[in-house]
Amino acid sequence: MSTNQHTLDLDRAHVFHSWSAQGALTPFVIAGASGTEVWDYEGRRYLDFSSQLVNVNIGHAHPKVVAAIQEQAAILPTVAPAHANLVRGEAAARILAKAGAEFGKVFFTNGGADANENAIRMARITTGRDKILSTYRSYHGNTGAAVVATGDWRRVPNEFARGHVHFFGPFPYRSEFWATTPEEEGVRALRHLERVIQSEGAESIAALLLEGIPGTAGVIMPPPGWYAGVRELCDRHGILLIIDEVMSGFGRTGDWFAWQNPELNPDGIVPDLVTFAKGVNSGYVPVGGVIISESIANAFDDQVFPGGLTYSGHPLAAASIVASVDAMEEEGIVDNAAAIGREVLGPGLHALAESHAMIGEVRGVGVFWALDLVTDRASRTPVPAATIGALKKELMDRGYLPFTADNRLHVVPPCTVSPEEVLRALAILDEAFTAVGG
Amino acid sequence: MSTNQHTLDLDRAHVFHSWSAQGALTPFVIAGASGTEVWDYEGRRYLDFSSQLVNVNIGHAHPKVVAAIQEQAAILPTVAPAHANLVRGEAAARILAKAGAEFGKVFFTNGGADANENAIRMARITTGRDKILSTYRSYHGNTGAAVVATGDWRRVPNEFARGHVHFFGPFPYRSEFWATTPEEEGVRALRHLERVIQSEGAESIAALLLEGIPGTAGVIMPPPGWYAGVRELCDRHGILLIIDEVMSGFGRTGDWFAWQNPELNPDGIVPDLVTFAKGVNSGYVPVGGVIISESIANAFDDQVFPGGLTYSGHPLAAASIVASVDAMEEEGIVDNAAAIGREVLGPGLHALAESHAMIGEVRGVGVFWALDLVTDRASRTPVPAATIGALKKELMDRGYLPFTADNRLHVVPPCTVSPEEVLRALAILDEAFTAVGG
Ligand SMILES: Cc1ncc(COP(=O)(O)O)c(C=O)c1O
Ligand SMILES: Cc1ncc(COP(=O)(O)O)c(C=O)c1O
Repeated sequence: MSTNQHTLDLDRAHVFHSWSAQGALTPFVIAGASGTEVWDYEGRRYLDFSSQLVNVNIGHAHPKVVAAIQEQAAILPTVAPAHANLVRGEAAARILAKAGAEFGKVFFTNGGADANENAIRMARITTGRDKILSTYRSYHGNTGAAVVATGDWRRVPNEFARGHVHFFGPFPYRSEFWATTPEEEGVRALRHLERVIQSEGAESIAALLLEGIPGTAGVIMPPPGWYAGVRELCDRHGILLIIDEVMSGFGRTGDWFAWQNPELNPDGIVPDLVTFAKGVNSGYVPVGGVIISESIANAFDDQVFPGGLTYSGHPLAAASIVASVDAMEEEGIVDNAAAIGREVLGPGLHALAESHAMIGEVRGVGVFWALDLVTDRASRTPVPAATIGALKKELMDRGYLPFTADNRLHVVPPCTVSPEEVLRALAILDEAFTAVGG
Repeated sequence: MSTNQHTLDLDRAHVFHSWSAQGALTPFVIAGASGTEVWDYEGRRYLDFSSQLVNVNIGHAHPKVVAAIQEQAAILPTVAPAHANLVRGEAAARILAKAGAEFGKVFFTNGGADANENAIRMARITTGRDKILSTYRSYHGNTGAAVVATGDWRRVPNEFARGHVHFFGPFPYRSEFWATTPEEEGVRALRHLERVIQSEGAESIAALLLEGIPGTAGVIMPPPGWYAGVRELCDRHGILLIIDEVMSGFGRTGDWFAWQNPELNPDGIVPDLVTFAKGVNSGYVPVGGVIISESIANAFDDQVFPGGLTYSGHPLAAASIVASVDAMEEEGIVDNAAAIGREVLGPGLHALAESHAMIGEVRGVGVFWALDLVTDRASRTPVPAATIGALKKELMDRGYLPFTADNRLHVVPPCTVSPEEVLRALAILDEAFTAVGG
């Protein structure tokens, strides 16, 4: 057993943290976790309504996933990607079964960033086009140089970090298009996208890369008609559609993938490439990947795919995927996420907004929610960072581990969360908003 | 239990493989492994002289590493990077102890590519310069676009995949500088590098990125004076030195890091940033990272570091690092690699070259060797791909799992390999070269 102080000391002495200045950090110490709860060494327990980085979809310490890792560690933790391995094939089969018949193969990576890397690579090579369109309000990963630094032949087909074009996606609450309803936002966003495509030159665009539901940017629900309109634009212009389901996939939205949500996508359109990570195995072992349409997979039957990484198709990761997907299926975890969203968490957050004027908008589905916090509902002015800091402290003091981004609180518990835990969390949220005067 | 055929069928139906055309693949099936051996479902056993992708430094199924993974899986497999976690701090401390007192912190990633991504990012930000110089004969990873596809603020400080310049590194056997001795190659390569620096504009160059010993490119041993000369050029021009020890680190060369080899680096120069992956935990769990000099780490005390990834500092990976570094230490595994290279494998490969004219050059140290295969020793003409294919088949048929690249056979067993296994492997190599008429 350790202590909070010892853990913190080791961390501050030796560990460099992401996306932050290192000087003033006091990281929260986690000693262990189970289900929706995490705890420190001093016995303080917290409801994990962050799912860490929105990845622990199956909850902490799920016994079936832990057991699968333990078993596979003893059988064979690692093999080179070029070889064949049973559990890797089984993991791919599980994922393809959830994605649907249009998809042919899975390419495994270590996480979300390199999943997108390889989807982009596939799109550029199969279309022979260069540009990738994505939205300003998006996050797709932190990589952008290693293959260009590489000297050998693998660099040449991959000198890609030109040709990225960003546009504004739909966001009814903070419209860039002066829209006053979600319907209008959908129409105008599609019109804007079409104008960007025309202006960039459709024949130069390989793919449109969109998060299933933009996550870090604020759980921005796509307005009616968006998915179908995007698919139609892509088809008309020979552009591939990559949906980044790294955060929105594997139960988070109450479906296996956000794009499969019948309300968001009543026409049932299907992307060409899907990227995943996080929820696929709840991050118990680092892994991600690309689900590849039959036709794109076949395009590489005779043509070399110039991408790869040492741990592609890692058996330990694959075993955790198989166990996780099976457990989610057997235990109805995806349905639980949908029901929690529909019956407890969604209604609860809307009720919270009734009594706290700081909550400008409640957005989400399943266990994927954001509260857009404002100083004033009419102007929708985002609350300052200090308010978010104060809110975080009030929540932590009450045993609620939050996820915040910009002016927002994202309410993103594991898909396994119980109604009782949600009610406890809602009560804490109520108190914390009152404490910060919101 | 499965069968080879079932495993292969699953693989061919569902799995997309790296760096290859998918149509004609017949991957080798691995069912299990232990130490230097791997086996299939039909009981065929192979000496793994590939270490998979030159990563299984501690051998397969090392009981201490397996146990550490099993224990950590039950305690806490995953936490967000922002939190503090005991085993992550312990892993960082272990790595820093091996790197030396000049280094301050470790930033963890998922593998080698994103380790280089983040080292490049640190170098560009701390120098305020853009260009990264690396050699044509190098491999640094497959990523190059995800952060540029990202739309949010994290893209802006990271639009980096411009400013990569490649030059020719030293390679005595296939000199680009008309050198006739390793000494002359060293002097001329430094002169060439200096001319590239001057011509690109030293004030525009953030870092020089060099593999400790270029690995995939052919285990190219740096000539005398190279390390010291490079450090001197960097210092004179305010350029940072990043050494990529992804393949050469953690025992492969018979030292903890290739740059610490007193014969290659008699002056004991030290890099500013070191990237690692593979051998740090033998790839039992995907992980990599950057070892950061005290001064570069401190440069981010007040300044935000704009890089990160969901699984940075993953506890399961960290536990496997702690167990692996400790076991390597306790069991003298790095010393074993050095002794094997000096006493058995090096002499054995040189003896092999005496009897097989196809072996143009034997290069290496520790358990990191390459045979440069030629049709003719005078012209040094590389053997064609068909010869490599035939050699591979002869080796596999005799129970030797090879690693080949271009016209070379890389002889890269685990650091734990026994003298007896090396002798068995050498006998197989002898037979296989005879069989292919070499
Ligand atoms: C939508 C999306 N794509 C990609 C990523 C990058 O994933 P990773 O951090 O595993 O590289 C993230 C991470 O938060 C994400 O939310
Ligand atoms: C020297 C070197 N750097 C970086 C990498 C990339 O590592 P990864 O495949 O884990 O991304 C490799 C992989 O072989 C390597 O040999």
